[in-house]
Amino acid sequence: MECRPTVKDIYEYINSIAPFENQCEWDNSGFLVGCKDNEVKKIGVVLDITTAAVDYAAKNGIDLIVSHHPVIFRAVKHFTDGDLPFALASKGISAICAHTNLDIAKGGVNDALAEILGFENVSLLADSGDLSMIRIAEIDETDGESLAKYVAEKLNAPVRIADSGRKIRKVAFCGGSANEFVPDVAANGCDAYITGELKHHEFLDALEMGVTVITAGHFETENPVVAVLAEKLKNNFDVEVEIIPQNSPVKHYR
Amino acid sequence: MECRPTVKDIYEYINSIAPFENQCEWDNSGFLVGCKDNEVKKIGVVLDITTAAVDYAAKNGIDLIVSHHPVIFRAVKHFTDGDLPFALASKGISAICAHTNLDIAKGGVNDALAEILGFENVSLLADSGDLSMIRIAEIDETDGESLAKYVAEKLNAPVRIADSGRKIRKVAFCGGSANEFVPDVAANGCDAYITGELKHHEFLDALEMGVTVITAGHFETENPVVAVLAEKLKNNFDVEVEIIPQNSPVKHYR
Amino acid sequence: MECRPTVKDIYEYINSIAPFENQCEWDNSGFLVGCKDNEVKKIGVVLDITTAAVDYAAKNGIDLIVSHHPVIFRAVKHFTDGDLPFALASKGISAICAHTNLDIAKGGVNDALAEILGFENVSLLADSGDLSMIRIAEIDETDGESLAKYVAEKLNAPVRIADSGRKIRKVAFCGGSANEFVPDVAANGCDAYITGELKHHEFLDALEMGVTVITAGHFETENPVVAVLAEKLKNNFDVEVEIIPQNSPVKHYR
Amino acid sequence: MECRPTVKDIYEYINSIAPFENQCEWDNSGFLVGCKDNEVKKIGVVLDITTAAVDYAAKNGIDLIVSHHPVIFRAVKHFTDGDLPFALASKGISAICAHTNLDIAKGGVNDALAEILGFENVSLLADSGDLSMIRIAEIDETDGESLAKYVAEKLNAPVRIADSGRKIRKVAFCGGSANEFVPDVAANGCDAYITGELKHHEFLDALEMGVTVITAGHFETENPVVAVLAEKLKNNFDVEVEIIPQNSPVKHYR
Amino acid sequence: MECRPTVKDIYEYINSIAPFENQCEWDNSGFLVGCKDNEVKKIGVVLDITTAAVDYAAKNGIDLIVSHHPVIFRAVKHFTDGDLPFALASKGISAICAHTNLDIAKGGVNDALAEILGFENVSLLADSGDLSMIRIAEIDETDGESLAKYVAEKLNAPVRIADSGRKIRKVAFCGGSANEFVPDVAANGCDAYITGELKHHEFLDALEMGVTVITAGHFETENPVVAVLAEKLKNNFDVEVEIIPQNSPVKHYR
Amino acid sequence: MECRPTVKDIYEYINSIAPFENQCEWDNSGFLVGCKDNEVKKIGVVLDITTAAVDYAAKNGIDLIVSHHPVIFRAVKHFTDGDLPFALASKGISAICAHTNLDIAKGGVNDALAEILGFENVSLLADSGDLSMIRIAEIDETDGESLAKYVAEKLNAPVRIADSGRKIRKVAFCGGSANEFVPDVAANGCDAYITGELKHHEFLDALEMGVTVITAGHFETENPVVAVLAEKLKNNFDVEVEIIPQNSPVKHYR
Repeated sequence: MECRPTVKDIYEYINSIAPFENQCEWDNSGFLVGCKDNEVKKIGVVLDITTAAVDYAAKNGIDLIVSHHPVIFRAVKHFTDGDLPFALASKGISAICAHTNLDIAKGGVNDALAEILGFENVSLLADSGDLSMIRIAEIDETDGESLAKYVAEKLNAPVRIADSGRKIRKVAFCGGSANEFVPDVAANGCDAYITGELKHHEFLDALEMGVTVITAGHFETENPVVAVLAEKLKNNFDVEVEIIPQNSPVKHYR
Repeated sequence: MECRPTVKDIYEYINSIAPFENQCEWDNSGFLVGCKDNEVKKIGVVLDITTAAVDYAAKNGIDLIVSHHPVIFRAVKHFTDGDLPFALASKGISAICAHTNLDIAKGGVNDALAEILGFENVSLLADSGDLSMIRIAEIDETDGESLAKYVAEKLNAPVRIADSGRKIRKVAFCGGSANEFVPDVAANGCDAYITGELKHHEFLDALEMGVTVITAGHFETENPVVAVLAEKLKNNFDVEVEIIPQNSPVKHYR
Repeated sequence: MECRPTVKDIYEYINSIAPFENQCEWDNSGFLVGCKDNEVKKIGVVLDITTAAVDYAAKNGIDLIVSHHPVIFRAVKHFTDGDLPFALASKGISAICAHTNLDIAKGGVNDALAEILGFENVSLLADSGDLSMIRIAEIDETDGESLAKYVAEKLNAPVRIADSGRKIRKVAFCGGSANEFVPDVAANGCDAYITGELKHHEFLDALEMGVTVITAGHFETENPVVAVLAEKLKNNFDVEVEIIPQNSPVKHYR
Repeated sequence: MECRPTVKDIYEYINSIAPFENQCEWDNSGFLVGCKDNEVKKIGVVLDITTAAVDYAAKNGIDLIVSHHPVIFRAVKHFTDGDLPFALASKGISAICAHTNLDIAKGGVNDALAEILGFENVSLLADSGDLSMIRIAEIDETDGESLAKYVAEKLNAPVRIADSGRKIRKVAFCGGSANEFVPDVAANGCDAYITGELKHHEFLDALEMGVTVITAGHFETENPVVAVLAEKLKNNFDVEVEIIPQNSPVKHYR
Repeated sequence: MECRPTVKDIYEYINSIAPFENQCEWDNSGFLVGCKDNEVKKIGVVLDITTAAVDYAAKNGIDLIVSHHPVIFRAVKHFTDGDLPFALASKGISAICAHTNLDIAKGGVNDALAEILGFENVSLLADSGDLSMIRIAEIDETDGESLAKYVAEKLNAPVRIADSGRKIRKVAFCGGSANEFVPDVAANGCDAYITGELKHHEFLDALEMGVTVITAGHFETENPVVAVLAEKLKNNFDVEVEIIPQNSPVKHYR
Repeated sequence: MECRPTVKDIYEYINSIAPFENQCEWDNSGFLVGCKDNEVKKIGVVLDITTAAVDYAAKNGIDLIVSHHPVIFRAVKHFTDGDLPFALASKGISAICAHTNLDIAKGGVNDALAEILGFENVSLLADSGDLSMIRIAEIDETDGESLAKYVAEKLNAPVRIADSGRKIRKVAFCGGSANEFVPDVAANGCDAYITGELKHHEFLDALEMGVTVITAGHFETENPVVAVLAEKLKNNFDVEVEIIPQNSPVKHYR
């Protein structure tokens, strides 16, 4: 049909809700694979462009994937079998990736996380200007174990906690792998910090800073934005939009 | 007693079983805090020198801590309250840290892990010379889920698995946070790799390389060496040796 | 036919005559685009993978291009319309690029150049080991103008000369853009140096070193290897091989 | 005579028409060799300070050379025979070099090129502030071949062209070796770009960007400024000024 | 007593008279060793924290040393016997170090030097903003030898002079090891420059710039600030303050 | 005379007694200014090429200066009045500089220093291979003050000492500005170290390492080699050789 959007139309819409120029310096968000002038028949939205996601797209007539994580991150010097961008190109699928620009956007990754966590009174981390990855919520006083269980229930996922023992009223949170913000969170007097994943030494360092930290999974804390993004695309374009089925790559035992 | 060992004596013994010159270039293993000529009354052995570990040592007459993780890692320009090396020095406690030199040593971190996992037929990763972090075990054919459950039971810890679906006979393993070796493991035809912790993107990358990866906790995969090291110190010196009580900083919910 | 070679087979043959490990550190020769296990129906050989070359290949059933210049040189972070590797992948064409490994190889770029120039008594530049880009020929004594006209005739191309006025008996040569070797050429007592292209300051610097330099075109000095390579591929594989028609991108006026 | 200008006077005049502070960061324009307080008897103006130019100056009583290209470009650690600055100093000749500050200046290299090309309606490249190397001319619609022949005739030099096939109305130009501006030229909608020299890969890259590029010689596109500069010096100082005879170091055959 | 100041109180007072944020980028002034909340019984003030100074402090009940030179300068990776910060921590002594922030402060190192030299009409080096290490004094015209002898008498120390022979009216000065400012001093038309120490090549370079330079000892030119600082601390806190006895580490013979 | 040596002959002789390839990586020893084929009428030998030394040479018919310190050390981008290499070139004087290659050479700077200090039993610092800057002498047991006075008398120069109080039998020494070797000297069990100059912090650091350090002047500890070198040149060439008169740039008062 003549009114089908092009890849470029979709790119410009995403740019309007999560400007690509707001991405972190080290990031590679943007239009990464495909032809900008191609008409789009069906959009697939997904957190990670994996081999399984590409195969699903190909089998289901999806010709544009909008993902959170960039399918090219470090610069590359070949495009061969085994490289996901090559798999996309071979199958005629374009890719637009909205990573840190979507983390930081109003209505993006972290606001989707706030909503699923049921937090109200959410504000940006003090002193961080108009743009901040980090959100803060004031909650009724609780303790680490209770908050950990609450997060596990809301995200329907196993959680990890390094508990400083501190009573918790002021909670910072940021989806994904966001250890870098712990010192800021501590300096701003937050009692707890919820993120997707931390390494052993990062848990220990947070405890030495006196902050309780809870991790609920990189996938689980970011995936809520997929449905939000799919919904916005459906509402703005007369094109089929599908959430590509995807679970965390990780299963837990015991 | 006149025959008490000095800090230097302990350092030299550890150097004989896990030479400090074998540490990785980026590591800071060695004699990091204290007086080398001090006589040692009581040794505490522990994975991580935390505030809790220092307090325990001070209350229990421990004047030398032997740890796995270095209490100074990045170079520092102050030495004040809140800095663990300062807490040690203030309380008259010395510290010797054996990190990658102990990972790599015969009878070190990874051999302790092999033993607790009950693996026999353990060898070093092919092509890696006399020194390798990575061990390989040939096991009876199994699948990812069964191996994950086996590891969880042996280490008494929750495990995570990203399962490639591959049948498993050749298993590589390395305690701690050892993502860097996944490409080598894949190139050497291993079916699975057990380590302490991986990040979301590292799980995904391993799957794209076709390797099943299982993580069983940074703490849980390295802590077995603490008892081994304490035993060796007891057998070689006429001095009190105590394992400083320590659990993983992380609790799991759900 | 079941005996069709795969891309990998072609790669391994080229590796046997011009080992990819001999390429310069800054080069990106290798298998750069496509599927290594694809069966090859028709090979196209060409100096540069341009849009025109890709279009020709697509129209003529070529599914593997073997080129001299790498289609990816600097590392890239996107793979979209306007990017030649994307054009290749979209059209199902693989690419193997043999650049400095072919310059340096016996029977490669520089030996093809020697042959077309009609030079005999060709040897490698002294002191450069078994591998050298630079060849040297002893010729009957001549002068710069005569040699320039001889090269122009043999290569059927306009030439440029910065003439030191020196009588010429010992001539060094290297196809392409090879200014970096001028000091070596001067230090080895060569009277003249023939290469593909030099910049204004490079002509001046060569003159200050007392060497006569002649450039005969980057394309013209390297293109002779294309036919040589096509012939070898024809002789070694039961597959159609075609030289993709290509001229220098540059036309000369006046 | 008491009213002879000093080297410093000449430097300050050049600084007034082409401020040295406007030079590119990587450039080394300025007063490079000699004594600033020396009285100047005779100025020689030339594009490149070569051995021949120095010898000519010495034989003809020139004690200050004003050149376009810097006689010292990369920093040096010796001044011996074979080094042009040493030759100048030995013969008592000073040198002032006005390179990118003269490219960019009003009435400098690129305006001299505009004049010799007979272009009217010349403006600076859009969005480049008050200072720009690049000039743009609107011309009557023509094609690549016609424009190439026109440039060859005006500059009385052989030209090279990589022709995109595009009709040409908007022409950008910059003397010398100015490949770095091609992307800007393309982004500003120019149909053709005239410069002094480009390498093979630079011709190809320009074609992929859809821009027709014409090169007319580094020497030929910059040398027009020599006469302009000599004239200005004559008009402003009561001192003999001579253009040092110089041709391009390159001769063309065939 | 309940009104004893803490280490933090002393730090904040010093910060008010010589703000730590004014230190040079390469400096490490600040609170470097100890506990900020400790009550201070006795302050020792000294130029350099040496082993002798630490021993004196320990024997005399000093629990906070305020020094000019930082006791940690380059970042370190161990705190063991032989390291001065370790000696401090072991003996329960804190350290605050005010280096370039005190050099630059009003009433700091260089104003104390001006006073002991008996200079009036002291101003900051022109063009250096509100903050400058360098002071300038206008004095009655004298010569190098006379000024050298005057400085030697005022500071009661041997001096060195590299004498340009120039008459002296405008004298720049800066305590310590301050060769880096000689070009600025020369460019500002100063006749002489007094500092603490220069190396052989620095004396030669200053002479080539035409500036007479006099060195009177790193210790001797900076130590006057110690008494000034001790006095200020006494006047502002109800705590015992002692100047730790210290001489230059250097004795002169012949 | 037809048998006059050229600059190149002198260079090659110096290379035979102090090979230039032995210089430190950061050094710039070599033939730095002039014409290698010039016949030499008169050689001037001197420690530092200063304006005074160049003027003396010009007035006294010296056309080659052989110095210890390189007249170009950091790479330069101009060659004008005020630059010593320009002054040399303008006056037709060549310069050969033998710096660290002469420090390290048998019979070079440090052996000349040994001789003037009257030390016997001189050996190279242990573990430093055939080439070492540092010499060691065993002397009759003495103390710091006595050794300092002895050095002052032998070199006829004021000396500085930072005295560790240690009895002295094993003395290391190295002319010039040689702080970098103090840790090696300490590690090799030397009691004292004599060099040309040290900075305040370097004196303090040496004391903390337990080594007594004595400085006797950069000029005074290196200048003895000048006479040695002049003598060798006289003995090997039939050319006039003169020591250019030079004193330390520094005078001492009080």
